[in-house]
Amino acid sequence: MADQGEVKLLKTWSSLFGLRVVWALKLKGIPYESVDEDLTNKSDLLLQYNPVHTKVPVLIHNGKSICESLVILEYIDETWSQNPPRLLPRDPIQRASARFWAKFMDGREQEEGVASIAENLKLLEAELEGKKFLGGEEIGIPDFALGWLVNLVPVFEEILGLKIVDEERHPSLSEWSRRISDIPVIEESWPPRDKLVTKWAAIRDHFLATARASSG
Amino acid sequence: MADQGEVKLLKTWSSLFGLRVVWALKLKGIPYESVDEDLTNKSDLLLQYNPVHTKVPVLIHNGKSICESLVILEYIDETWSQNPPRLLPRDPIQRASARFWAKFMDGREQEEGVASIAENLKLLEAELEGKKFLGGEEIGIPDFALGWLVNLVPVFEEILGLKIVDEERHPSLSEWSRRISDIPVIEESWPPRDKLVTKWAAIRDHFLATARASSG
Repeated sequence: MADQGEVKLLKTWSSLFGLRVVWALKLKGIPYESVDEDLTNKSDLLLQYNPVHTKVPVLIHNGKSICESLVILEYIDETWSQNPPRLLPRDPIQRASARFWAKFMDGREQEEGVASIAENLKLLEAELEGKKFLGGEEIGIPDFALGWLVNLVPVFEEILGLKIVDEERHPSLSEWSRRISDIPVIEESWPPRDKLVTKWAAIRDHFLATARASSG
Repeated sequence: MADQGEVKLLKTWSSLFGLRVVWALKLKGIPYESVDEDLTNKSDLLLQYNPVHTKVPVLIHNGKSICESLVILEYIDETWSQNPPRLLPRDPIQRASARFWAKFMDGREQEEGVASIAENLKLLEAELEGKKFLGGEEIGIPDFALGWLVNLVPVFEEILGLKIVDEERHPSLSEWSRRISDIPVIEESWPPRDKLVTKWAAIRDHFLATARASSG
């Protein structure tokens, strides 16, 4: 294998966006050093390498930094194009569709809030029908972009006491979730479930307290 | 020149995101049919080709649709890679930087609102220092993504009665603006200025009326 150069990844323990990059590096077999940031006390490294947003993840390759998870994924795919899997399909129309789905959740979350989750899941279910992965036959960038669902949806279900994804209404999505979970590199990289439950329960409580204070 | 296939672009008369695509098609010399949509009364074509967001722009190439302006720009660059200009640099680190800047305004707008415009302009000024274009020596995707500034900033200045970009604080940005404006294909494709002023004045008035109603 060719020399990879020095690869460093700045992320946090629970960042969805950081996970996308972890998966790509691990699946392509690229050795890297992982640096977990504390966003309440940002390291000099982070301030130096992402001066614009000072956000994670940041990939540092031979001293040069790349920011924004989807941009990093494209960089990884182009730089290590010899290492399977290819993260974007070869066909231009399929590439465009993969990029569209990769951007899909990022945009929707900001735009319409959690209220539209049910609607989003319906669209995803339709898109996944008869497909192995969002990218087609192989796992790829859109699967990485949306893969956090597989881990966080059950956490949200536990915190909120409701069923979000079910086998009956979302058969293709459920199958895709299992297919994602079955990939060892992905399974081993999930953040610890109990820490996630604690984190999201605190966010829920904070949200409820704020809602009560403003209505009372 | 090879057969381009049938190229159709759905947009609105004033869409910033549509303009990005117009510039790419025109600079690469790709003949296309432009269909102006009325978003209060969406055409069957739009509903058929962008069922997920029902938003413009949509590029339809040989009956297949591509959505999201930045995704469309990458598609155009890959599909008509023989037609200059190249819309992304060859070097992977420079490509990543170009993609980062292309996403930059899209994200920031939603995230932090207009209040951060001054901060954004400072970052842009720093990035453009000593550069011809955001992509480097050649115009490219990030220049298309941010090119609307060149036309809309003067409109905002007129509507709001203040100076947003000035030669003294933003010399590189000012020079870049002139360089963008001097490209005939870009100059000829701006929406009519008087219509833009009318549109944004109406938005300003609506905003002021809402602000007054909620504080009174």
